[in-house]
Amino acid sequence: MTSTTPAASLAALMNPQSVAVIGASEDQTKFGGRLYKTLIRHGYKGTIYPINPGRESLFGIKTFPDITAIPNAPDMVVMALPTGKIKDEIKKCAEKGVKCSIIITSKFSDAGPEGAALEQEIVEIANKHNMRLIGPNCLGLISPANELVLCSSPALNVDALIKSPIGFISQSGALMGTLFDKAHSQGIGFSHCFSIGNQADLELCDFLEMLIHDDGTSIICAYIEGLKSPQRFIELAKLARQKNKPILAVKAGKTEIGSKAAFSHTASLAGDYASLKAICKSQNIILMDDPMAMFLLALSMSKFPGQKIGNATIITTSGGGGALTADALSEQNIPFSEFCTQTKESLAGLFTPGQAFNPIDLGGRRHDVLDTDKISELTAEIVMKDENVDAGLFVLTTAPSVLNTTTSLVTGAERTSKPFIVVMLPGQAANAARGYLVAKNIPFTNTLGEAVAALKNWQEWSGFKASPAVIWPDDLPDISQVKGILNESESKRLMASFGIPVNKEIVVADIAAAVNAASEIGFPMVAKVVSSQIVHKSDVGGVILNIQSVKELEQRLMIMLSNINKTLPGAKIEGFSLQSMESGELELIVGARNDAQFGPQVIIGSGGILVELLKDTLVLPAPVHVETAKQALEELKIAPLLKTYRGRPALDVETVAQTIHRLSLLACRLKNSNFEIEINPLKVKQQGSGCVAVDARAQIN
Amino acid sequence: MTSTTPAASLAALMNPQSVAVIGASEDQTKFGGRLYKTLIRHGYKGTIYPINPGRESLFGIKTFPDITAIPNAPDMVVMALPTGKIKDEIKKCAEKGVKCSIIITSKFSDAGPEGAALEQEIVEIANKHNMRLIGPNCLGLISPANELVLCSSPALNVDALIKSPIGFISQSGALMGTLFDKAHSQGIGFSHCFSIGNQADLELCDFLEMLIHDDGTSIICAYIEGLKSPQRFIELAKLARQKNKPILAVKAGKTEIGSKAAFSHTASLAGDYASLKAICKSQNIILMDDPMAMFLLALSMSKFPGQKIGNATIITTSGGGGALTADALSEQNIPFSEFCTQTKESLAGLFTPGQAFNPIDLGGRRHDVLDTDKISELTAEIVMKDENVDAGLFVLTTAPSVLNTTTSLVTGAERTSKPFIVVMLPGQAANAARGYLVAKNIPFTNTLGEAVAALKNWQEWSGFKASPAVIWPDDLPDISQVKGILNESESKRLMASFGIPVNKEIVVADIAAAVNAASEIGFPMVAKVVSSQIVHKSDVGGVILNIQSVKELEQRLMIMLSNINKTLPGAKIEGFSLQSMESGELELIVGARNDAQFGPQVIIGSGGILVELLKDTLVLPAPVHVETAKQALEELKIAPLLKTYRGRPALDVETVAQTIHRLSLLACRLKNSNFEIEINPLKVKQQGSGCVAVDARAQIN
Repeated sequence: MTSTTPAASLAALMNPQSVAVIGASEDQTKFGGRLYKTLIRHGYKGTIYPINPGRESLFGIKTFPDITAIPNAPDMVVMALPTGKIKDEIKKCAEKGVKCSIIITSKFSDAGPEGAALEQEIVEIANKHNMRLIGPNCLGLISPANELVLCSSPALNVDALIKSPIGFISQSGALMGTLFDKAHSQGIGFSHCFSIGNQADLELCDFLEMLIHDDGTSIICAYIEGLKSPQRFIELAKLARQKNKPILAVKAGKTEIGSKAAFSHTASLAGDYASLKAICKSQNIILMDDPMAMFLLALSMSKFPGQKIGNATIITTSGGGGALTADALSEQNIPFSEFCTQTKESLAGLFTPGQAFNPIDLGGRRHDVLDTDKISELTAEIVMKDENVDAGLFVLTTAPSVLNTTTSLVTGAERTSKPFIVVMLPGQAANAARGYLVAKNIPFTNTLGEAVAALKNWQEWSGFKASPAVIWPDDLPDISQVKGILNESESKRLMASFGIPVNKEIVVADIAAAVNAASEIGFPMVAKVVSSQIVHKSDVGGVILNIQSVKELEQRLMIMLSNINKTLPGAKIEGFSLQSMESGELELIVGARNDAQFGPQVIIGSGGILVELLKDTLVLPAPVHVETAKQALEELKIAPLLKTYRGRPALDVETVAQTIHRLSLLACRLKNSNFEIEINPLKVKQQGSGCVAVDARAQIN
Repeated sequence: MTSTTPAASLAALMNPQSVAVIGASEDQTKFGGRLYKTLIRHGYKGTIYPINPGRESLFGIKTFPDITAIPNAPDMVVMALPTGKIKDEIKKCAEKGVKCSIIITSKFSDAGPEGAALEQEIVEIANKHNMRLIGPNCLGLISPANELVLCSSPALNVDALIKSPIGFISQSGALMGTLFDKAHSQGIGFSHCFSIGNQADLELCDFLEMLIHDDGTSIICAYIEGLKSPQRFIELAKLARQKNKPILAVKAGKTEIGSKAAFSHTASLAGDYASLKAICKSQNIILMDDPMAMFLLALSMSKFPGQKIGNATIITTSGGGGALTADALSEQNIPFSEFCTQTKESLAGLFTPGQAFNPIDLGGRRHDVLDTDKISELTAEIVMKDENVDAGLFVLTTAPSVLNTTTSLVTGAERTSKPFIVVMLPGQAANAARGYLVAKNIPFTNTLGEAVAALKNWQEWSGFKASPAVIWPDDLPDISQVKGILNESESKRLMASFGIPVNKEIVVADIAAAVNAASEIGFPMVAKVVSSQIVHKSDVGGVILNIQSVKELEQRLMIMLSNINKTLPGAKIEGFSLQSMESGELELIVGARNDAQFGPQVIIGSGGILVELLKDTLVLPAPVHVETAKQALEELKIAPLLKTYRGRPALDVETVAQTIHRLSLLACRLKNSNFEIEINPLKVKQQGSGCVAVDARAQIN
């Protein structure tokens, strides 16, 4: 990697040889005072230029009255001036030749159109002079890797920063400080933390790219409110996978009210959570609910790079704690390790009879064979070495021996290469044990829920299978001319042209024509009215199902016409659509749309009454490989109905998957349009009998 | 209340005038040494008798070589001798006239049949001399109300106990110590905590009864593994409701593996969680997953006795924190307060435009009107006084002002009578703020999830409506003679005799009789084979649906016979059941059984394919009032299908509820039998058209 890549350039920019702090002082009630002191406290090795017109020196470092007064241009400048003063200061910095400025100040695009305009002006000034910007409305950066802290948060009031291969990008400044603070108390450190604020210039993806290329970072965490460049995000996620660097993310604004709060905060439009979830799933980004569970998992993964986990074992000092933990794991469907025979035999010598099973309650240790701590140590070692055990959860309760037990379990477990997480349920009584874990940099939490969330997400990440590359068929038609709102026939023709099975259909002008054409469709038959004035055909009696004969067809079409004449007098009837009546064992909905952020995607879900009850839909980024479609069908709540069910053979999942794949190709071809397509329902038949779209609609703009 | 009630007697027993500690010493590595020191440390006012044959005095208190050497019988004795020595010691205590002994030692009924036998012997010895027992296999008791601590846990290594009106009963000793420890660190204290262990003599319900009558206890928390006397538990729950004392509980062993751990722990058979849940729901017991969330809620409720909450408002120092909190509340369906006009107007003067909505981000405070802390204080006061706000969630992040902001919010909120919970997201940076909250005894947590769980459960508790008393009709038949496995006709006759609608049915001996009787049923008709040798009628072609005429009946019965002859040659055909063919819009399952712990109960759920997919069943303790049945139907996942749905009128919920009610009466009449009854399906028709059981089975032993 040469310094010509954007990531390398940004890495160099983030490791400045000199830093100017505008508003530096000794006053710890002021932003500039706190930031300046924190910078010095954490041992920055470069040149510091405190800017303060009223002082000769600060903490023994020569001050300057103004940025222009510094002999050389500092690499980096940080400022928290009032909003109104930022533009002038940025101009001075840019003209001086500063490489990067951090603007802490808020009330720019986060405060409405006026602020947004000012923000834009500032970016233009900076760009003109090749100066990059972080913020505004951010909290700066904390880079233990570079021994550089440009952040005023009291989170930094700690003796020493903890270095780790975890990088963190936060769209919320306050949360960056808060989470750094909380993480530090659990012994979790970082390589770099960036608060990106309004992302006026440098944005989340810039830092993501930098961290993906950073040798000192092996895991990347992000707190996301809304993505500025979703497509770039996807590309970087692919790159991170290639480089085996897991990305973990928490997204705020999952729900409507959450979105509202996120919007007001950093002026980011919270994207559709389901779409983001689909992207994350397709790229094996670990999307979590709880930032602290995210860090716990990040630390665990950084200690065991690339390790995959399936099942787990519990070792606990309390049967009650074991029971609660077992309940929590079971609810998350995390499987329990079943010990192999050798493990059972080894444990049998250490525990009273009937006590050596998963979850292991150390209360069952024998008192007549070995020191109890030694038994704890051996238990951890034996259990973690078991080939059926992927991960350990050590749940400690308040006891005089909590430090000894913790030490013993860690010592035993560390003789193996398996990951484990310690759950510290006690209060003050375990402070010494916590100190030991922090010093040893062992992943631990005080909250069982965080540990279970970490394991669950680790397990899901482990089970990832990359979608095979989609091979584009040669036979796809040119649909560049297809536009507007398509009626049912047109929609089905479009789909059929992409190889999607649709039911047989003839459109006829009148009843006489219907009678003549009936034999081409056959019976049972469906007849629907065709009229651009009638959108909801069923509501006006415009759909006739299960017609058994030509005679019935004729009679019932006459009744239909008479009914429509009564309810919609004067409606222009363009004709009738005669369709084959299809039976199916199950109805699905399959749709496609162009997501504003993530582009073309397919939505699949259960149809009929189930769709609303089950809220059973999944989003898949297009194109969708047939295998990926099959996997997605497995994840629907109605998946059991696709298999052999109550004596009925399995359904034709293969053709359903083909249909999803084909619709995804159609969606990709429409990627430059704003479109919505829906098959509702897709009737699914038994294996070998296929599936068929019996109603469809499309709108392409 | 006189001391003649069991609760008063137990209360007196738990407040002994003298306590003997067997194995008292100065050695803090030993149980007796720790317990003895802890007892003194926390200021027990009664007489202490240390028992230690090797010492004259301990910490200045005269020791005795043996329990028999004490001049008077101590009220209470605590012992942690090896299992083998307990029986003799108990005998000495009992003969001496000790009123209550606490046995800490384990390996009794928790270790298998041999231990159980020994435990039983010990109980008999104690009973003979009117001595009560706590344990064995317990951790003792912690009673801040009585300044009595008989517990060796390092959880007690604190300067002073916190008194509160929260009582706690724990079936796990280790968890009692652990949770006491953790609770203490969050400023949560107790009136009494009892570790009940194996409940050989005194059991959970004894302590529950005592706490319900205890004037110093207003909220009762319990950690339950299995109930020894479920019916008494229900009666006590009713009493607690009468006395307006909420009961909060966490039950371990919800899942299979959890149950395994619970069993091995205190030899308690974990009951069926669904049944317990039903009982808790019917008695408004708050059943939670997380013990710390339980204590947080207990403290909150104890500060605001009887207060009911619906919606909530968030005040936060970080937009990001607000967004995550809003997401978490929305996911739990906790509604957000919409501020009233006056609140909006008052806030408008304190916040920059567009920032004064729920969730409130204090980052939006104006800097030009008042001191920011004063704005925080006013904001809390204004918002909490809003008539649309029921509860507040104050989410604090790391900032230099975290203590000031916390103080301001609490001060403002305390001017109102509304409950609030503080969520402390920071690490070390908020330690001073935590100290303030502990000192003020304000409910707070470091984990957002705990606060959300507390609010959710508080909200559910608030919405409780007691079931009206069930009025028993006079017209119920005598069914005392009904026994054994009933066939479909017998099952339906039994149900019909209780007023449950069943479809019309005639049983005939042969085809000729079927043809003659057909007109009594009418068409369409269902015919089923009757044979005690054929259990699964459908599997052998023994069910014919939708018969339209006498001729079809005759023909198809002949085909049926011929088919059965082929598949089950020699099967004895007793006849045919002719039934009216019923249509319905929805199928339900309605069953009843006699639960081993909680007695007769009704189970309702969605039928057809939905039952397995949705896992949509609810248990209701019998008898079930019609109104309770209606409420339960509302809680089924398929509830939307019972209402007006896609143009189809609402279904006949009234008769379904009547059916559930009637089946529950039947279940109650069978309460002395082990029975299972099932209607599957109950076909539900449109409003006014009723519902009807079309298949049923029953087994009464």
